[in-house]
Amino acid sequence: MAKINKIFSNILRLLAVAATVVAIVFMVTSHDSAQVLNLTFTAKYSYTPAFKFFVVGEAIAGGYTVISILLSFKTLFWRIIVFLDMVATVLLASSISAALAIAQVGKKGSTHAGWLPVCGQVPHFCDRVTVALLAGFAAAVIYFVILLCSLYAVL
Amino acid sequence: MAKINKIFSNILRLLAVAATVVAIVFMVTSHDSAQVLNLTFTAKYSYTPAFKFFVVGEAIAGGYTVISILLSFKTLFWRIIVFLDMVATVLLASSISAALAIAQVGKKGSTHAGWLPVCGQVPHFCDRVTVALLAGFAAAVIYFVILLCSLYAVL
Repeated sequence: MAKINKIFSNILRLLAVAATVVAIVFMVTSHDSAQVLNLTFTAKYSYTPAFKFFVVGEAIAGGYTVISILLSFKTLFWRIIVFLDMVATVLLASSISAALAIAQVGKKGSTHAGWLPVCGQVPHFCDRVTVALLAGFAAAVIYFVILLCSLYAVL
Repeated sequence: MAKINKIFSNILRLLAVAATVVAIVFMVTSHDSAQVLNLTFTAKYSYTPAFKFFVVGEAIAGGYTVISILLSFKTLFWRIIVFLDMVATVLLASSISAALAIAQVGKKGSTHAGWLPVCGQVPHFCDRVTVALLAGFAAAVIYFVILLCSLYAVL
């Protein structure tokens, strides 16, 4: 039973690594530009602190996941893995939430604050950010399930 | 040792309830308005989906915390409490991150997206939102420690 749990957990970890890699690649390569009234309007993930936090969060969680797969073969480290799984879950939930909040304003704008939506001008940017956010969301959900597996094994 | 852990955990839970109540009260009562070029500019938490999510997240976490204090006296429920503590931690981290991302744009604006900062016009709104976010951040940190205590007791 413990062996099946470990195999299932490692399959989920591989999926989480894939999801974080997709999220990082699509977010980092999401630049686009448009001409608005003779002015060039450029959209880049690095202009938005929340998107930078998203990339850093996904990178840390993805990197840790690779290490956790290697560590999972040494039963000595299971306590530290449960703790770090918890940190990774919180980090992923936090980074996807911050990025989603900004993406929502980018898509719909905020009438009361006078912030106009930007997706009409830079659709290529928004499409790639959408894929990155979907992958980031998948990574967060997968990590939640990984943490559940770890807790189930412990409890 | 287990008794000390439970007392410490319940003190932290009371602090978490206090922090979520402060966060909700300050966020909900944060409206302000200003005259800009003969137009009335109104700022309200409910105009921003991220701030609404923040209030809902704090309310759910705060409500659960009250119930968890009562349940903690029945040792029968400790497994479900560890699981729900995990959910509450993720929910609090998620809601504070989304709200912080929007607050950062409200304070500094986003030059590249053409979103102007609003705190100059509605300082009273921003001050109250700042207090709400500090309380929400405190609630998330307290919950992280509560979850650590729960895991420590389990492991």
